[in-house]
Amino acid sequence: MTSIAILGHGVVGRGVEQIVDTRDLDVEVRRILDLPQFCDGPRMTSNYQDILDDPQIEVVVECMGGLEPARTYILAALEAGKSVVTSNKAVVAAFFDEFVAAANASGAALMVEATCGGGIPWIAGVEKAARIDAIDRFQGILNGTTNYIIDQMVKGGLEFDVALAQAQQLGYAERDPSADIDGIDIANKTIITASIAFGCACTRELPVWGIRTLTKADLDVLAGKGLSVKVLGRGVSRDGRYAVAVSPVAIPARSLEACVPDNYNLATLHGETIGELKFYGQGAGSLPTGNAMVQDVLDLKAGRHPSYDFSAGLEYDPALLVCDYALRSAYVPADADGELAPGYAILRGLDPVAARAVLDEALAADPSSFMVALPEVC
Amino acid sequence: MTSIAILGHGVVGRGVEQIVDTRDLDVEVRRILDLPQFCDGPRMTSNYQDILDDPQIEVVVECMGGLEPARTYILAALEAGKSVVTSNKAVVAAFFDEFVAAANASGAALMVEATCGGGIPWIAGVEKAARIDAIDRFQGILNGTTNYIIDQMVKGGLEFDVALAQAQQLGYAERDPSADIDGIDIANKTIITASIAFGCACTRELPVWGIRTLTKADLDVLAGKGLSVKVLGRGVSRDGRYAVAVSPVAIPARSLEACVPDNYNLATLHGETIGELKFYGQGAGSLPTGNAMVQDVLDLKAGRHPSYDFSAGLEYDPALLVCDYALRSAYVPADADGELAPGYAILRGLDPVAARAVLDEALAADPSSFMVALPEVC
Repeated sequence: MTSIAILGHGVVGRGVEQIVDTRDLDVEVRRILDLPQFCDGPRMTSNYQDILDDPQIEVVVECMGGLEPARTYILAALEAGKSVVTSNKAVVAAFFDEFVAAANASGAALMVEATCGGGIPWIAGVEKAARIDAIDRFQGILNGTTNYIIDQMVKGGLEFDVALAQAQQLGYAERDPSADIDGIDIANKTIITASIAFGCACTRELPVWGIRTLTKADLDVLAGKGLSVKVLGRGVSRDGRYAVAVSPVAIPARSLEACVPDNYNLATLHGETIGELKFYGQGAGSLPTGNAMVQDVLDLKAGRHPSYDFSAGLEYDPALLVCDYALRSAYVPADADGELAPGYAILRGLDPVAARAVLDEALAADPSSFMVALPEVC
Repeated sequence: MTSIAILGHGVVGRGVEQIVDTRDLDVEVRRILDLPQFCDGPRMTSNYQDILDDPQIEVVVECMGGLEPARTYILAALEAGKSVVTSNKAVVAAFFDEFVAAANASGAALMVEATCGGGIPWIAGVEKAARIDAIDRFQGILNGTTNYIIDQMVKGGLEFDVALAQAQQLGYAERDPSADIDGIDIANKTIITASIAFGCACTRELPVWGIRTLTKADLDVLAGKGLSVKVLGRGVSRDGRYAVAVSPVAIPARSLEACVPDNYNLATLHGETIGELKFYGQGAGSLPTGNAMVQDVLDLKAGRHPSYDFSAGLEYDPALLVCDYALRSAYVPADADGELAPGYAILRGLDPVAARAVLDEALAADPSSFMVALPEVC
């Protein structure tokens, strides 16, 4: 019997609890940490020390979200030799190398499947592929909220604000939706994926933008060119260098990515012998994310113990992700080279850092500007 | 260091050899079995006893294909306590329960990732999902040859015979293409998947047909209804019963399945908490299939040891897969109920065994008859 403690009794924590309590997994939820006013049962506690001091608790399942106290709690568990399973992409993206150092020092394991793609076995897939192949590129629809919004704009003919309000009503988007619609959530998942796929402590200073200024008309114009739009996290590595970026990307309308419906996720990796592998499923939600966390607990029981190594020392080089971009803006850059359609200037051969700088100039002149990458990736 | 023996030095065996020889995996290819005339190096042998008698060989990697001597060799290895990794779907589908009994008796492991979906971690994904959820349904484009043929018919406007000849020229199809185009290869993979997903020794007497009589005109008619055609292996399980079938299936043109290009595979499972998971990649080929076999070897090294249990005692009940069908034939069954399009009779609420019987009647009267399922699945 493996005893676990759940930190945070919200949507994800309750999913973990429900799965463990209703299945015969040889796992028990021994303690649940929450605020004092929510501690209404014998296994609830508001004192983290109760969990740290309990020698029977082998695994701490962190589903609190946010940077603090999550960071402090994760480090304390790892330093105490307890393995940590977390769904907290923000704290892992910010402190991945610190957590890995603490885990490696104590021999505890850090399990992060639930940080990327909810119930999809994406992190396990990346780790497995990397045992044999150097992963040279990946890309992912790693945010269900933006996928839902775009899908509703396309299928329902909605404008962005209406689709966003609908996503908020369904609980897919927060009241402050910035982390989703500005690409920050995807950036965190891209940092975590790149760190594991490429074996380096991925930069947190990557170029990132989202779909805050996307209009129905933009989607119609691109559809007229046989293109769909998705927000993608992308990573490339070769010759001792790597690049990562997050932005809207135009993709062929007859691609698997373009067909991803609702709030689903789809992530792709590429390696020399395995070729292209894609993983699709629910990227969020109580039971899918809870499932991923319980899978991590079961993997620990079965002896899987990822020991991450970020010593590859790769150099960040955005030039690896050079491609063309289309910009809809009242501001037309001097080096625009033709139009994709009337009003959509084409900028050729930009790396994502340069593209983000052009977008900033455009947004300063015209706050409604929208920019989309036009690559051939994965 | 784990020492392995490779049985069969063809396309897949050479893929395994290449991956192990060129990577630092702590694995060595100690012996390779082939016919005497191909034994041209010190580790080659044509005598299987050399491998059985070598106590250093822990894992036998069987890539010979066919039923014999593969069955005898696999059983001998398992009985000798050597684990077996195999890509041979025909022999596993035919003797899965016998192999599992031998493995369970000796404590050796039987690893079958490479039998289904080439390099895609499909079997591992099914096993992992089944740790938490009862898998209630799955479906898969599990044959790259038929996917390639249909894709060429759609994108290139080719007739079946031309697309098949092209697949044969590229090495995707055998000179006798029956196993692929009649659905037999997919049936083997469906039997293996169902056995693992549902925990039963799946029947080998499932209804199976393929695309031998598919025409460009059929695809055009269905496209006019917003439908694409793929050959799918499908399985359903509930309430102590299960059903499996293989047939052409009409699916929405804007689905991920419809967008699967070339010779790729896409397989889907569904479970209560995980929801829908899809896995996509190269379903065949030297390096992808070799990759899957080496992954099985690495999983064995890491302590993964699937011990299959087929004791669930599920009853085969094709009624679980009842759906409508469209039949293009000079023969029109008495119970046809309207037409999908002129010349395409609709048959309502058939289970796949009944549908296969109707197709047999139609083929007897009109050998060019074609039948496609019209379900809403997965």
